[in-house]
Amino acid sequence: MSPALPQNISSDAFFACADAIAQSARELAALGWTPATSSNFSMRVDDSHAAITVSGRDKGKLDRGDIMLIDLDGHAVGSEARPSAETALHTQVYRRWPAMQAVLHTHSRTQSVASRLFAADGVIRLRGWELQKAITGFDTHESVLEIPVFPNTQQMPELVARVDAWLDEGKPLHAYLIDGHGIYTWGRTMAETRRHLEALEFLLSCELDLRRLSA
Amino acid sequence: MSPALPQNISSDAFFACADAIAQSARELAALGWTPATSSNFSMRVDDSHAAITVSGRDKGKLDRGDIMLIDLDGHAVGSEARPSAETALHTQVYRRWPAMQAVLHTHSRTQSVASRLFAADGVIRLRGWELQKAITGFDTHESVLEIPVFPNTQQMPELVARVDAWLDEGKPLHAYLIDGHGIYTWGRTMAETRRHLEALEFLLSCELDLRRLSA
Amino acid sequence: MSPALPQNISSDAFFACADAIAQSARELAALGWTPATSSNFSMRVDDSHAAITVSGRDKGKLDRGDIMLIDLDGHAVGSEARPSAETALHTQVYRRWPAMQAVLHTHSRTQSVASRLFAADGVIRLRGWELQKAITGFDTHESVLEIPVFPNTQQMPELVARVDAWLDEGKPLHAYLIDGHGIYTWGRTMAETRRHLEALEFLLSCELDLRRLSA
Amino acid sequence: MSPALPQNISSDAFFACADAIAQSARELAALGWTPATSSNFSMRVDDSHAAITVSGRDKGKLDRGDIMLIDLDGHAVGSEARPSAETALHTQVYRRWPAMQAVLHTHSRTQSVASRLFAADGVIRLRGWELQKAITGFDTHESVLEIPVFPNTQQMPELVARVDAWLDEGKPLHAYLIDGHGIYTWGRTMAETRRHLEALEFLLSCELDLRRLSA
Repeated sequence: MSPALPQNISSDAFFACADAIAQSARELAALGWTPATSSNFSMRVDDSHAAITVSGRDKGKLDRGDIMLIDLDGHAVGSEARPSAETALHTQVYRRWPAMQAVLHTHSRTQSVASRLFAADGVIRLRGWELQKAITGFDTHESVLEIPVFPNTQQMPELVARVDAWLDEGKPLHAYLIDGHGIYTWGRTMAETRRHLEALEFLLSCELDLRRLSA
Repeated sequence: MSPALPQNISSDAFFACADAIAQSARELAALGWTPATSSNFSMRVDDSHAAITVSGRDKGKLDRGDIMLIDLDGHAVGSEARPSAETALHTQVYRRWPAMQAVLHTHSRTQSVASRLFAADGVIRLRGWELQKAITGFDTHESVLEIPVFPNTQQMPELVARVDAWLDEGKPLHAYLIDGHGIYTWGRTMAETRRHLEALEFLLSCELDLRRLSA
Repeated sequence: MSPALPQNISSDAFFACADAIAQSARELAALGWTPATSSNFSMRVDDSHAAITVSGRDKGKLDRGDIMLIDLDGHAVGSEARPSAETALHTQVYRRWPAMQAVLHTHSRTQSVASRLFAADGVIRLRGWELQKAITGFDTHESVLEIPVFPNTQQMPELVARVDAWLDEGKPLHAYLIDGHGIYTWGRTMAETRRHLEALEFLLSCELDLRRLSA
Repeated sequence: MSPALPQNISSDAFFACADAIAQSARELAALGWTPATSSNFSMRVDDSHAAITVSGRDKGKLDRGDIMLIDLDGHAVGSEARPSAETALHTQVYRRWPAMQAVLHTHSRTQSVASRLFAADGVIRLRGWELQKAITGFDTHESVLEIPVFPNTQQMPELVARVDAWLDEGKPLHAYLIDGHGIYTWGRTMAETRRHLEALEFLLSCELDLRRLSA
């Protein structure tokens, strides 16, 4: 069930991405961060294509046939499969930042709860945690890491516009939450993206714990 | 220890159900949702029969000998074994909805605690969570998902009557909780039923977390 | 490193007990209920002997050499090893109830925290939970399950006397907590004892969750 | 990628330390105590050298090539690799206590949250927990175990000075927390150090739970 790749796409490059996505998906599913077929994952294949998970599959059991090729407008390439409903949020990252190679969207309990709790503020501000240093570009716990929380919508263009608006104000962006939903983060390699995701889950969990205990 | 199946029952159909039940039971037990031999599981075999777990077995270690055939009045067929005490709640689903093929009843800590907390209200109303879309028929987080909480009783006919009363009022029903006890949910395939159960556990957990944090 | 068993003790009986203890210990350690070499486990070998864990061993890695024979006064038999410091609490069970075959003492976070929280009351009263039915002799959630919480002490005779005093008042006893410490429970088989322990951990966890949420 | 060991260092001794560090690191990573390449671990090799983790590696996947030799001033020996940024906190332990053989620094959610919560007090005082007895030198739950919480800084000499100041006041020290960061503990063997770490994580978790429930 591999896609019929166009001549100009290296099958080695596509399958390397597909395998890396499937492995990360299995590991993140085992943590319980992809409940009930939620979540989606992608990697850049070249300047104008990405590999992304097919919609609705169990993320703990992905193989190559569950990953498809798209162009950076989000259209399927060489496949009849339907890409993840939130494909536009992945391609936006690849279009805006040529250096970014992977995008992970998960849906853990901590991510969902934090997004609800901070939705009214529109942002979570993290400071004072040593692990902020796991986000590329941060070298001290004294920095402030801002993660915006955007309102949820079933209309992807609205979300794309909110991300664009944040960036167009010149604010740094390493990840964002969607209210009642999950997190998006990215990086220059899959390993960096995984480190970002792991650090963000940890930081959000700590922030919620601290809030419970400080009440 | 296989049951002596009547001539008109396909042994292939029965064993396919028994194997699917045993596998789901092992996976749900590993999550800690079936403590101390609690919980029970069934699948429809044909128009008038179902396969169901024998009472009192460790749900992490089921095999074919722990699954028995019943008719839709809850009577054992071809076996001296005693079906789960709550068999009537399973057969009710199969009698009311010909399309339903599987019923899962688990007993997680979250399910038990949520049932106690919302027992006085008689219902849990979920809204604003993206994962509501994992329940068949829901396509937006803006919908409201109602899960009734019925009083616990050792008399199954009382529970059957409460479920009937809810449905006879024309209200949608995808799952229900029993106070101090656990959850029942169902679906048109085992995979759909598992997705429902996983989504409901996630949503109840998030709702409890949010309540703790918003206090 | 097997003990030199006296002539009148069946080595088959001793090793069957030792193997059952080691297996349960591994499974309970994997749940995190035996932190930092805490906890101890025993089984009755015959009318006047029991097998018990040697003091201070890592409960996740027990083998036959970590289990020793004692008489029901708590003295080592055929071994120079030192039995668990709390041996007297095990032998008390075997002396008072000829039907009891296994005693498990674990030290989970839930057990430790619940014991501190209810120490001033001296008892935890559970009611309204379906899982109370997992305790032998209980057949409805409407019953009340009382678990005493005794003050901690490094002097075992004081604890033995408190257990005796509770029983001498004619009160039922299926398990007890020690303040800041852990739980003791027992049963007529290892399987029944495990079911009791699993149910008690679940019930205490639910009770703490409910208390957090009802505040 | 083994280091070029100087003539006077036994390669057997170095590799025994490296293997013990890698195994502990894998087990602690599996518990989630080393998120996003955080944490660092060391063992004493001889009177004037230690083996320590190379900076920035994934602690769940260490092998011998991820462990390097240093002298007790923290300089790399026979290697171009960069030792953990917090190396000075490890060598301080080996310099002050000739009997200490292992130092573990982890970064669990409980450790991070507890450090924030008690940072203003500058110390966490544990009392009444049976598991305090897992710390060498403690033989009753009635003792008081003090764990200082030092302010975080990216300047290691400041932290070294705070540890020295605590010790120079003659106060006992078995472990310390750094605000928003993690824990340091040590022992005369790796097994003792692991027991200390496991007990401290348990005690901090219980203390946080109790605080949540007593509010």
